[in-house]
Amino acid sequence: MDVTGLLEKAEQEVAEKGRKAQAASRQLAVLRSAVKDRALLAMADALLARQEEILEANRKDYEEAAAAGRTGALLDRLKLTPERIAGMARGLRNVAALPDPVGEGVSRTVRPNGLVIEEVRVPLGVVGIIYEARPNVTADAAGLCLKAGNAVILRGGHEALRSNMAIVRALHAGLEAAGVVREAVQLLEFPGRESAQALMRAREYVDVLIPRGGAGLIQTVVREARVPVIETGVGNCHTFVDATADLQMALNIVINAKCQRPSVCNAMETLLVHKDVAATFLPQVAEALRERGVELRGCPRTQALVPDVKPATEEDWYAEYLDLILAVKVVDSLEEAIAHINRYGSRHSEAIVTNDYTAAQRFLDEVDAACVYVNASTRFSDGEQFGLGAEIGISTQKLHARGPMGLRELTTVKFRVYGNGQVRES
Amino acid sequence: MDVTGLLEKAEQEVAEKGRKAQAASRQLAVLRSAVKDRALLAMADALLARQEEILEANRKDYEEAAAAGRTGALLDRLKLTPERIAGMARGLRNVAALPDPVGEGVSRTVRPNGLVIEEVRVPLGVVGIIYEARPNVTADAAGLCLKAGNAVILRGGHEALRSNMAIVRALHAGLEAAGVVREAVQLLEFPGRESAQALMRAREYVDVLIPRGGAGLIQTVVREARVPVIETGVGNCHTFVDATADLQMALNIVINAKCQRPSVCNAMETLLVHKDVAATFLPQVAEALRERGVELRGCPRTQALVPDVKPATEEDWYAEYLDLILAVKVVDSLEEAIAHINRYGSRHSEAIVTNDYTAAQRFLDEVDAACVYVNASTRFSDGEQFGLGAEIGISTQKLHARGPMGLRELTTVKFRVYGNGQVRES
Repeated sequence: MDVTGLLEKAEQEVAEKGRKAQAASRQLAVLRSAVKDRALLAMADALLARQEEILEANRKDYEEAAAAGRTGALLDRLKLTPERIAGMARGLRNVAALPDPVGEGVSRTVRPNGLVIEEVRVPLGVVGIIYEARPNVTADAAGLCLKAGNAVILRGGHEALRSNMAIVRALHAGLEAAGVVREAVQLLEFPGRESAQALMRAREYVDVLIPRGGAGLIQTVVREARVPVIETGVGNCHTFVDATADLQMALNIVINAKCQRPSVCNAMETLLVHKDVAATFLPQVAEALRERGVELRGCPRTQALVPDVKPATEEDWYAEYLDLILAVKVVDSLEEAIAHINRYGSRHSEAIVTNDYTAAQRFLDEVDAACVYVNASTRFSDGEQFGLGAEIGISTQKLHARGPMGLRELTTVKFRVYGNGQVRES
Repeated sequence: MDVTGLLEKAEQEVAEKGRKAQAASRQLAVLRSAVKDRALLAMADALLARQEEILEANRKDYEEAAAAGRTGALLDRLKLTPERIAGMARGLRNVAALPDPVGEGVSRTVRPNGLVIEEVRVPLGVVGIIYEARPNVTADAAGLCLKAGNAVILRGGHEALRSNMAIVRALHAGLEAAGVVREAVQLLEFPGRESAQALMRAREYVDVLIPRGGAGLIQTVVREARVPVIETGVGNCHTFVDATADLQMALNIVINAKCQRPSVCNAMETLLVHKDVAATFLPQVAEALRERGVELRGCPRTQALVPDVKPATEEDWYAEYLDLILAVKVVDSLEEAIAHINRYGSRHSEAIVTNDYTAAQRFLDEVDAACVYVNASTRFSDGEQFGLGAEIGISTQKLHARGPMGLRELTTVKFRVYGNGQVRES
């Protein structure tokens, strides 16, 4: 088939599933919490009951990907085990236990003419999720969308298609056991990239698109989508060690932010150090980081204070390494630190270590990012850690949601207006 | 110059003004309310002080547009008068009197590890507004964006360019008198449509784009923009007169929703009538509407009950007439009314007239629209009428904002996290 034919086929699937999702979303919007929670628990049970089928499908996906020479990181994320399936089931149970955001009142006002205006949370409608070959996202995203009353259309990486299909069969069994329409959760099965393209253009059916994955995937979605997108995840995070920092605290925070889990978006990628403490702090932190296998890339002043540091290039200041690499820069002032972060950062999570009240407040006020920290590790930027219970992603854009997104961010509002004959005079 | 050359020139202007806007936005984000309000009042004063200059510029715009054979509606909206300039000044003063949304706390939580997480309203950053030849939008949008701490880049219809330039000169004088950076408000002066195209693609500089205007403009922006967009304004609004409606109340509401100001997005475009009251209500309402010059287009059952009604086509059910035309349909049930609205409506404002408790609640629950009404005119969907004080538009999308948008909708949030050395364990 030629490219046009493939796109048409992908569009057909999106249109068909989009129509069904829209119809399902109308039912889901008025579903009671008790029913949604029952479905979530039944979905968890079904995942465990069908574990063998899911593992078998995953084995085929894994073998095919390995044979095609895919890399270690992809294979690691693709691989399912009984423990990982148990984790997916636990995730669904946790979501069932969270409060339902739908119906929550945002405001209620009585206007002078007697109109009562209620602003109330309602589901978004149909949510599209585009993600990579991580089958656990299939269950996680489906659970969160369902709890918030949305229908979801999933488009996972093609390497995980068999796994995703087996997982969705289990989720459907759970939905049906609870009497919930199975089109609440649908998976795009057309294997080509045309499938993602068609979903990104389906304004008629999809209310919001959330890409989950690496920088490449997210940039593609942001560039190509016609559907409103919530941009997630890219994190070029900084820690600024100020002149008045408690240096032992700074050392702990820097080690944690860089080393505790370097492959995630809230890990630190650049360390900024105030010139007044650079001579004391840098040799110390360099030794501690090198013991943990971290490669340092520094500005000239860093290179002068620490032996054998590679020079940092302009690209390093922009880099999201997701690895045991750290860019290091000595700055003259708080202002220079803030300006550096606002120039090179990705507006995700930024921290200052200081004991100066004014510096702390200025950093919180003037750094333009979703999450700004004083005296803590950027690794806390996470729905779980923020107390949201679960997370659909971390938004780095400013529209709709910013920072860790939980169930509330999967809703919108509706104005319900109660009158008794009011008409407008002017 | 060829098309590529024009686009490049437009892109240059957007890049240059975008950089300045971004720099200005950092200052505006931390500006005190008192300073912003002083600037708004000075901007109002400057509009009045420079009235002659503005009127003179507008006269040239008007003559050129008239000579080019532009239509009555465009000319009417383009035309400035001393009264209209006074109205713009009054608008700015009203915005100064509104509470500042910036800094408002959304939530504060203390996590088990002692981290304090504050969710706080902050400005969006740089807002782009694309609008038609309505010079009053220049002052209105600038005032609202400034109050919410945002820098704004304005791109108005080219027919109003001289007027807009004169207005922005006055606004700059006001900003400067209050000691606020003049790049808080910038106007794109490149006259071609390439200017709007460049602004729509300026992801690097613009955080949010809000189109204000007719369906054509909004569809173009939604289709072409790479910057996140808030879709506003298209209104195919319905009123459903239920079997239990107080028919006198229904008559008042229908007349108001259709006739009080037919050219606006919250005016009614389709009337749905329950079959049980159609024979009584339709002849009555048809007479009242025809007295007011309304043309009716009806379904076959409507045609059978009211003489001389043109047949409504499929296009009529989708139409936003913005004129004294009304589509009319008799429906068998509440369910049919809801299904019709969810199929053909534009998710703006929808009303039911009823005295049936269950019907009212089902309509409010099941109709998918920004504003849903019981026993009131859809004409109330408006920032002023909802008590927001002022309005930047009415969102018909679900992301970020839905329904009338005031100052709060021109902000986003930021998580400010206070620690004392916390690092993440798992």
